[in-house]
Amino acid sequence: MERETGWSLAEIAELLGGTLDGPAEHRVLRPAPADEDDPHGLAFAEGSYVEKAMASGVGAVILPPDVDSTKPTIRHPRPRQAFGRFLGLNDRPLPLAEGVSPQASVSPLAQIDPTARIGAFAVVEAGATVGPGARIYSFAYVGEACAVEERATILPHAVLVKNVTVGPRSIVHSGAVLGADGFGFVWDGTRQHKIPQVGGVEIGADTEIGANTTIDRATAGRTRIGDDVKLDNLIQIGHNTRIGAHTVMASQVGVAGSATIGERCTFAGQSGVADHTTVGNDIQVGGQSGVSKSILEAGPYWGFPARPALIEMRTQSLLRKLPELMKRLMRMEKRIEELER
Amino acid sequence: MERETGWSLAEIAELLGGTLDGPAEHRVLRPAPADEDDPHGLAFAEGSYVEKAMASGVGAVILPPDVDSTKPTIRHPRPRQAFGRFLGLNDRPLPLAEGVSPQASVSPLAQIDPTARIGAFAVVEAGATVGPGARIYSFAYVGEACAVEERATILPHAVLVKNVTVGPRSIVHSGAVLGADGFGFVWDGTRQHKIPQVGGVEIGADTEIGANTTIDRATAGRTRIGDDVKLDNLIQIGHNTRIGAHTVMASQVGVAGSATIGERCTFAGQSGVADHTTVGNDIQVGGQSGVSKSILEAGPYWGFPARPALIEMRTQSLLRKLPELMKRLMRMEKRIEELER
Amino acid sequence: MERETGWSLAEIAELLGGTLDGPAEHRVLRPAPADEDDPHGLAFAEGSYVEKAMASGVGAVILPPDVDSTKPTIRHPRPRQAFGRFLGLNDRPLPLAEGVSPQASVSPLAQIDPTARIGAFAVVEAGATVGPGARIYSFAYVGEACAVEERATILPHAVLVKNVTVGPRSIVHSGAVLGADGFGFVWDGTRQHKIPQVGGVEIGADTEIGANTTIDRATAGRTRIGDDVKLDNLIQIGHNTRIGAHTVMASQVGVAGSATIGERCTFAGQSGVADHTTVGNDIQVGGQSGVSKSILEAGPYWGFPARPALIEMRTQSLLRKLPELMKRLMRMEKRIEELER
Repeated sequence: MERETGWSLAEIAELLGGTLDGPAEHRVLRPAPADEDDPHGLAFAEGSYVEKAMASGVGAVILPPDVDSTKPTIRHPRPRQAFGRFLGLNDRPLPLAEGVSPQASVSPLAQIDPTARIGAFAVVEAGATVGPGARIYSFAYVGEACAVEERATILPHAVLVKNVTVGPRSIVHSGAVLGADGFGFVWDGTRQHKIPQVGGVEIGADTEIGANTTIDRATAGRTRIGDDVKLDNLIQIGHNTRIGAHTVMASQVGVAGSATIGERCTFAGQSGVADHTTVGNDIQVGGQSGVSKSILEAGPYWGFPARPALIEMRTQSLLRKLPELMKRLMRMEKRIEELER
Repeated sequence: MERETGWSLAEIAELLGGTLDGPAEHRVLRPAPADEDDPHGLAFAEGSYVEKAMASGVGAVILPPDVDSTKPTIRHPRPRQAFGRFLGLNDRPLPLAEGVSPQASVSPLAQIDPTARIGAFAVVEAGATVGPGARIYSFAYVGEACAVEERATILPHAVLVKNVTVGPRSIVHSGAVLGADGFGFVWDGTRQHKIPQVGGVEIGADTEIGANTTIDRATAGRTRIGDDVKLDNLIQIGHNTRIGAHTVMASQVGVAGSATIGERCTFAGQSGVADHTTVGNDIQVGGQSGVSKSILEAGPYWGFPARPALIEMRTQSLLRKLPELMKRLMRMEKRIEELER
Repeated sequence: MERETGWSLAEIAELLGGTLDGPAEHRVLRPAPADEDDPHGLAFAEGSYVEKAMASGVGAVILPPDVDSTKPTIRHPRPRQAFGRFLGLNDRPLPLAEGVSPQASVSPLAQIDPTARIGAFAVVEAGATVGPGARIYSFAYVGEACAVEERATILPHAVLVKNVTVGPRSIVHSGAVLGADGFGFVWDGTRQHKIPQVGGVEIGADTEIGANTTIDRATAGRTRIGDDVKLDNLIQIGHNTRIGAHTVMASQVGVAGSATIGERCTFAGQSGVADHTTVGNDIQVGGQSGVSKSILEAGPYWGFPARPALIEMRTQSLLRKLPELMKRLMRMEKRIEELER
């Protein structure tokens, strides 16, 4: 989390390309939010957060050039960006020793690049491949015919069940299960028959799969997650579904089987997509919304079933007026009665 | 995923009970979806999918007798069924060596059938029993007083915490947690007091529990999942809840505690059931719907709170007409004003 | 689950502070629900459950003083409370041998209290601390710079990724993932850039985190869960979010990043809270409801967006009347037409 000895404010100002507003020797140990009482923290603040930062116990602050400060301060035209760089200085991967841990269980029929790292209590099954610089942490399971490509990371407790490819530099977070059987049964009038699920999962490059998220393998062929896709925690992706590049899904989104999601879409938390539907490119789906039919035109969608946000907003605002509407209706009925006399 | 050498189209036609439309020597390696560019794949196509299959790069196709084809083809009166059989030919369980892995941790007080298989880094605690032909994969935890019955499968990273019985031939997928404490607390005005949870979970025969699904153990007695039940991923089943035979739940469904669900029900994704409610037999609950009161009559239900689908559909369609309704109301008000003059 | 030899009804009556209604020698092995056919079970029943208990096969029952009984019976003025005490008699922790299992992987740079217990296939990384009486079960991962404080319990398969503190007596259930990267990306027009997540997670005292629940670590600073908080299964808590003491959340609730939740709140199943919103103290949020804007006043809230329950109930009941409203509107239009002639 932090460099033991930290940095002086002067050092940090230089590293972040900012201007020191002193005192130069103030010690900074780690990044902090503006409202955190951390005397060794460095926060950033803009707009209304400047006041919060001045009032909190945070030790030092990155500010725009033109605002007053009562704290050790670095000036930067874009404080958020400078803070991002400071976050980067504090970032390092989870610990993992070089090579293959003697406490790992690696099949002699797996192919492990000599520069890959594999932790204690990790399992790599026969027919799996682990590429250069890949990191397989403790309790990770890399199943039969799985491929962890160059510099990909499989965090503690992530599971690649079978036929799963994780592309270069992609990250699979803890507890994610990729490649479990797709959910397919046929009801014959007396019992459910399992449809064998023999396909795989393909995760592109630079993609992240969140903690405890599940992505089922295809009945045949591959469930496909594109490049630079970012999936948050506890998401479900059904079998044979495809998700286009750069799409972002917040936590607890559910996408049923055989859906096709376009590129650069965003899905807010707890939204859902029905099976066999298509979602076009550049579509934003609101929180708890449900896409029950294909939507193709770019733009924001809301509600259940999800409709263009403007239309849904209008319906919602009229819904609020229902009590008033009811009153007006009753008043009119009386007036008509009067007229009819 | 595939037989190394694959099959000739003639071999496959015979295995699937279809008619070869040639060429007989075309090599097939695996099943594929109709729109997958896989020259060694065999897909099936009916209706509008025939065109897709002809346009895609898929190598061979199972078709009904009477449609044109430009690809290596097998004819079958029910292509989907023949494809299902082909899936079966390609299906095999995850690898697991015979016997108990020397890297497993099995209590001397557990009873393990000699025909059961237990993988590396699996834990079986005291008082647990593992039946004939059962398969316990790596990182599975079979806790105290749990029973894994004949030919049941506990996949990598599945957890049976305590007092959990998994019936014959049932499958618990990766990351599922069965038998965690039911969620029960009593608020005394100053703090929450935990109600001890000392019951168990009973999973019937031929049932599947999806990846990362959680089924809590009962306060007392047993949370019961019937025979031939199919639960998808990321589902929550609360303590003391009962689910009848053949019921199917899609991903992210939540059933609170002490609910009783009938037989042959289906729950679409992200739907929910409140605690202490009853759902009768043969009920279908729509996606994102919420069952807040007991529903007993068979049929489809939608919405929140869930109501018979026809009624809910009518409300939804009137909801769409709210803007028009508002306009008509305002027009009438004007006309009445005119009349009143 | 049960004491091998059980108790006589007379023994139990005394242990629970009740009055024996005999027969004194009836054997009781375990608690049971009133409707369970368990001849060795002891249930409690009040109100309408008395009839159920008499009709079921449960062996013995705790009843209020003044109701008829046809079964072995203990009388108690508050049967539920007496039953709770009986649950406690039957409760004991999952088995875990004293000391550190030789099959665990514990870093020499971790600090383990001599009274802590660590199971087979548990991992404790460098810089982690495990306090007096703490219990770390099989497959638990206690990552870098994590602290498991006095008498805290980390159940099988729970994961503390990094910078996670679990307070005294708190319980982390199986499959929970605490301290995974917060979900933060910046879109630059061509690709997503990951914002480094270098903060931590702080869990208070006497708190429970449910199975497969995920709590992300802060970008900087700490995601904070207060004392005596009870989170059910499959919940998502985003980075930098704060949850006040005594708050209870049912299964599948989702709280986005940087939200602030007050004390003594309750969230029903599948409800959600948007990012950067504030929820005051003593607020109850209904099932499947969505808090999209800050709500500060105590009381019940429902719907999407969540509004005071009374207002939402009125809207919902008018919604039911939409078909009638439509009819009245059409009738009025006709009457006006008549009048206008």
